Amino acid sequence: MKWWKVVLVVVALAALFSVGIILGHFAIPKKADQPESTGPPSPSQDLDPELLKTVMGQLDANRIQENLRELSLKPHLATSPRDEELVRLLLQRWQDPESGLDTATRGEYEVLLSFPSNEQPNTVQVVNPVGNILFSARKSEEDLTGEQGDTNVVQPYAAYAPPGAPQGPLVYANRGTESDYAYLESQGINLNGTIALTRYGGAGRGAKAVNGAKHGVIGLLVYTDPRDINDNLRFPNETFPHSWAMPPSGVERGSYYKHFGDPLTPYFPATPSAFRLETADIQGFPPIPTQPIGFEDAQVLLCNLQGPVAPESWQGALGCVYRLGSGFQSNGTFSQASEVKVTVHNQLERRNSSNVLGIIRGAVEPDRYVLYGNHRDSWVHGAVDPSSGTAVLLEISRVLGTLVKKGKWRPRRSIVFASWGAEEFGLIGSTEFTEEFFTKLQERAVAYINVDIAVFANATLRAQGTPPAQSVIFSAAKQVPAPGKSSLTVYDNWLQHSNRSSSAHGVIPSLGSLGSGSDYAAFVHFLGITSMDIAYTYDRSKTSARIYPTYHTAFDTFEYVEKFLDPGFTSHQAVAQTAANILLRLSDSLLLPFSIGDYSETLRSFLQAAQNAFLGQQNINLGPLVSAVERFERAVAELEKRIEALQSLSDPLQVRMVNDQLMLLERAFLNPRAFPEEYYYSHVLWGPRTSNVTTFPGLANAYDEALKMPDDPSTWAKVKKQLSIAVMAVEGAAATLEPVAQF
Amino acid sequence: MKWWKVVLVVVALAALFSVGIILGHFAIPKKADQPESTGPPSPSQDLDPELLKTVMGQLDANRIQENLRELSLKPHLATSPRDEELVRLLLQRWQDPESGLDTATRGEYEVLLSFPSNEQPNTVQVVNPVGNILFSARKSEEDLTGEQGDTNVVQPYAAYAPPGAPQGPLVYANRGTESDYAYLESQGINLNGTIALTRYGGAGRGAKAVNGAKHGVIGLLVYTDPRDINDNLRFPNETFPHSWAMPPSGVERGSYYKHFGDPLTPYFPATPSAFRLETADIQGFPPIPTQPIGFEDAQVLLCNLQGPVAPESWQGALGCVYRLGSGFQSNGTFSQASEVKVTVHNQLERRNSSNVLGIIRGAVEPDRYVLYGNHRDSWVHGAVDPSSGTAVLLEISRVLGTLVKKGKWRPRRSIVFASWGAEEFGLIGSTEFTEEFFTKLQERAVAYINVDIAVFANATLRAQGTPPAQSVIFSAAKQVPAPGKSSLTVYDNWLQHSNRSSSAHGVIPSLGSLGSGSDYAAFVHFLGITSMDIAYTYDRSKTSARIYPTYHTAFDTFEYVEKFLDPGFTSHQAVAQTAANILLRLSDSLLLPFSIGDYSETLRSFLQAAQNAFLGQQNINLGPLVSAVERFERAVAELEKRIEALQSLSDPLQVRMVNDQLMLLERAFLNPRAFPEEYYYSHVLWGPRTSNVTTFPGLANAYDEALKMPDDPSTWAKVKKQLSIAVMAVEGAAATLEPVAQF
Repeated sequence: MKWWKVVLVVVALAALFSVGIILGHFAIPKKADQPESTGPPSPSQDLDPELLKTVMGQLDANRIQENLRELSLKPHLATSPRDEELVRLLLQRWQDPESGLDTATRGEYEVLLSFPSNEQPNTVQVVNPVGNILFSARKSEEDLTGEQGDTNVVQPYAAYAPPGAPQGPLVYANRGTESDYAYLESQGINLNGTIALTRYGGAGRGAKAVNGAKHGVIGLLVYTDPRDINDNLRFPNETFPHSWAMPPSGVERGSYYKHFGDPLTPYFPATPSAFRLETADIQGFPPIPTQPIGFEDAQVLLCNLQGPVAPESWQGALGCVYRLGSGFQSNGTFSQASEVKVTVHNQLERRNSSNVLGIIRGAVEPDRYVLYGNHRDSWVHGAVDPSSGTAVLLEISRVLGTLVKKGKWRPRRSIVFASWGAEEFGLIGSTEFTEEFFTKLQERAVAYINVDIAVFANATLRAQGTPPAQSVIFSAAKQVPAPGKSSLTVYDNWLQHSNRSSSAHGVIPSLGSLGSGSDYAAFVHFLGITSMDIAYTYDRSKTSARIYPTYHTAFDTFEYVEKFLDPGFTSHQAVAQTAANILLRLSDSLLLPFSIGDYSETLRSFLQAAQNAFLGQQNINLGPLVSAVERFERAVAELEKRIEALQSLSDPLQVRMVNDQLMLLERAFLNPRAFPEEYYYSHVLWGPRTSNVTTFPGLANAYDEALKMPDDPSTWAKVKKQLSIAVMAVEGAAATLEPVAQF
Repeated sequence: MKWWKVVLVVVALAALFSVGIILGHFAIPKKADQPESTGPPSPSQDLDPELLKTVMGQLDANRIQENLRELSLKPHLATSPRDEELVRLLLQRWQDPESGLDTATRGEYEVLLSFPSNEQPNTVQVVNPVGNILFSARKSEEDLTGEQGDTNVVQPYAAYAPPGAPQGPLVYANRGTESDYAYLESQGINLNGTIALTRYGGAGRGAKAVNGAKHGVIGLLVYTDPRDINDNLRFPNETFPHSWAMPPSGVERGSYYKHFGDPLTPYFPATPSAFRLETADIQGFPPIPTQPIGFEDAQVLLCNLQGPVAPESWQGALGCVYRLGSGFQSNGTFSQASEVKVTVHNQLERRNSSNVLGIIRGAVEPDRYVLYGNHRDSWVHGAVDPSSGTAVLLEISRVLGTLVKKGKWRPRRSIVFASWGAEEFGLIGSTEFTEEFFTKLQERAVAYINVDIAVFANATLRAQGTPPAQSVIFSAAKQVPAPGKSSLTVYDNWLQHSNRSSSAHGVIPSLGSLGSGSDYAAFVHFLGITSMDIAYTYDRSKTSARIYPTYHTAFDTFEYVEKFLDPGFTSHQAVAQTAANILLRLSDSLLLPFSIGDYSETLRSFLQAAQNAFLGQQNINLGPLVSAVERFERAVAELEKRIEALQSLSDPLQVRMVNDQLMLLERAFLNPRAFPEEYYYSHVLWGPRTSNVTTFPGLANAYDEALKMPDDPSTWAKVKKQLSIAVMAVEGAAATLEPVAQF
């Protein structure tokens, strides 16, 4: 080879070598950027739309139906043997090697429950002056389908009502509100020593007793009027099992405790060694013996009352003119001097109640939790309440568990499934859980999804939640086909049934706010976790039922669901698809899908309601609240801009920091001193509101009190204090959204 | 060229090309791993040891000295014109384009302060029965160095003591503790209608008045005994300016408010519109007129008392035998029936007080805050208290600010420098700040470093803090040379002066615990933020002074520091180096340098103290506490293993998750219901402990109360409640350290 050839070859080799180096360096991505499917997931992986489709496609109506059949086979009252069997069923499902979760564990608490006596049933009797029993109300519901005769059906009772046997003349007190009792007195009726008959609705269960006792009432009866629950149907041949309506013997059971959580251990998890109140020191139990009865028995009592005719709004559908009493008509079934005797033998018992927790560990941010829960305990068979929700829960966990077990998927964040115990007695299992894991949840919980009763009826979605949940619920509902023949989505169908005009979004479905009706209560009120509750429900143009008619009765059975509420279980499936879609979006999206702008709309509307109500009142200056809301709005708008401008979502710390701001916004509205007379309520925006002014609840309530005593400056001081609480919460929330390196 | 040559060349070229590709891919790191100094920092960058050296080398004793000269030039009582000048000075320094911070802002609060009247000075007089004034105490301190005559020196007074002019016979009540007054009564001395003379120390300022009033005392005097402050020196020629000792006319001013924070707005930031208590509803002001006096005047009163000789432990160094009273000797300076009249004209005033905040934005995790603060306001010139700390603060911020402005460095986390207002009146500026930014700080604050009085004396470091702070303080102290001629480090010198035996570490310096003596109080007790306080202090073998002798007097001047406390300012420099080193470690380390294992040692010692004290007492079962502490110890050990095993610290999310566990551990010990009678105190481990049992303070205090009334079951119920609070805190803390996807 010539020397110049050698040089040429060497130069060519060197050039090629360099090109190789350059190509190797720039053209081939490093392995770290190219995760294998078996390796750890990329911290920048976003939610996969295909996953949503896969999961929604696998959620099976038949499986939900079979879940429900098993769950509602027998009565499963909290801590009963069947409740324990269901605990094991859940553990078994969640520990299944093919379709289970990463871990499934039991959390047990020793809690105070209340039961009627097996030996001495509670009784309601009419007694004449010489002591003869003229009438006895049923001690149990009629056995119409075989299930009501099960020995495990608990007698209808008012949980936590004290034992006793008061006897006195009967009065009719409508719904047992403070103003109902006041009205009776205004009609010259002496309530001292009376037994009050009231109907469900209008006031909390326990409040009917508390209000009555203040006026001298010594015993309370509660029934469900066919006008309120059955669209006036009341005869055996037109009620269940012939329709969805409540049979005449049906009785709504329920807890009459004012607060929630284990009554003996407020603010402590009810471990065996926890500090417990003396029973006598418990606040919030009803003060007088109380018993619920069916409308069949209520009719006998109510239609025989003497006295003035009750107002039109107090009338019901029992087929007679309702009178106020006190005492019975001389020309009726009972002698005029006959009285009603209510005998209650309820007993308080400390029992072990279990939660079951099932976890899918997050792949990227295992320390961020999306919780999804429902209670397990029922009053009787509880096919609707709560087993419809549990049937959905088990189907969602099966589908996601199977993907995890097959190695096909793992969410970015941890998913915590929960089956709560003893909800019916006052959200006890979920509340104790929040007490035990307060700090851990406060620091790490992204959201809580509750599906208790999955299907009240099969007409439309109904969702409640705090504002950041609105957009993710909407996004999910837009991807789910509505059940039935319609070709609409769940979202569009919902929009038709229940909508409102939003300043930001135009006409949208109405998202309700969260009270304390199910296990989300401690999550939203005590912990400030963005929460939501999802169900399918009624067409309100077709029924005015207060709730589904067999609620808390022995007629809430599998057959009832299958025949009347959701034949084919398509509404159950739609709820499962919607809830699973929400769950996946929350647990797998790179950026949390929270619409914090929707809090701006809420705050603006609260502000306007306050401005309308307080105009020119007693030196109430809303200027600081105006400034706070404006600052919040600015902070939201600017944060939304910064999120959009995040040049790349590939920096996992940037994403985490923004997500922390979104997650913790709800926490900023907490003030443990906002509602000093209520247990757990700390969320300044969603605490209990007794006022009609739709503004900050503490402010609205204080304002109502001040209007009652406008000359007492201390009442206006309370308004001002609540105004400061509201301002401080909004300012603090704005501060958490503002650029982080800014004070 | 032969065909085989062509083939050979092609093969060689191909091989070389491949080698090049391989080399290029594997041997040359991608640019992302190699950040340029101008680009964004790597999220995996750890603290640079060279940076520590650079910063420590630049902290300049002369500059600290010049800072102090300027800061202490004039009296700068909270909200005074000079206080405002210093606000501007701080803003100017922190906004300096060459050596300032990223941002510097003012935070203003409208707070309730208490001042003596300019027109009517407070007086202390001896008055005979016909009303002649036999003696008047000084109204101001003697002008010994020219500075005491400044018209801006505030008259000595007891802030928040009410106005009034009580007159009565004098008694000597030692330190004004509950047992001191009880002792006087046990000696047959009727305290009703008396004026009590007490000395500083032993009880909180306000407590002396509260305790006395319970026994009928109507006015209070407080002085500083030369035995307690001056190692018995008391003559003008042996006290300042001839030594560091307090001159005879020196008077300790101070706040007599029981709580901390603005008295009108507990739990609200004191914005102009905030809800305010009525003045009459404020809890915790002293109930009787109170006035502090110098020992020169105290001697005249005390050495003329009649009555029984006071116990040995009540005697002091005023050169006479202390008697109890009541009333004066017949053969002394005053006639026997003479009384003491205390006239107080203090006024409450709402004033605007400012904090100044200066921020260095974090490069990687700007939403994590390391706070470093000191108050700015003094009682008079305040060269030691607080300007020694502010002089150090300004020097640290200058050095770090310069690095930032030059583009040479930016910390991983954000640094927040704070100059608090109105600390002397009750930690007001810092407390209002924690109220305003509660949620933001609770979610994001890594630690709070307090350097108030930087140098009490020049013998040794003294540090207080919660256990996670121990190791970072030690690490820093080991890198700083001790001031003076010694060749020891600050750590080794400290170890010689004050040490203890640790079960985990052997003999180590003693870290004190945090009470409520300076601005860390709201951070640790209200917010649960790992906090610490750093200073240089006495050799306790050489002085028994309760505190540096000119504390809160008009003699706390620049000259005093320069001449007696720290000639050459080398101790100031050592404190600056130690504090800056800590600040850099906390703000720039990849993993937070918190030694959570040191909480195991604390909890174990609290448990053992409880076991020793409660042995066999009244059914107190410590089993649940034992289990909780063991669970905590396990959780710590396992987390430490997981941290070690973190294969690579290059995953920024893994690091963030672990750091969040470390940061938020302290939060898990909070329970806002643990100390219901105290404002702000929520930290279950460090709340106010009145008991000698060194266990959980709520538990210890309840136990002491129960021992006083052992037959009252309600007292033991309180012990059990506090035990549950302790168990719940430790269990919750363990849960936050356990693997995150576990409940």
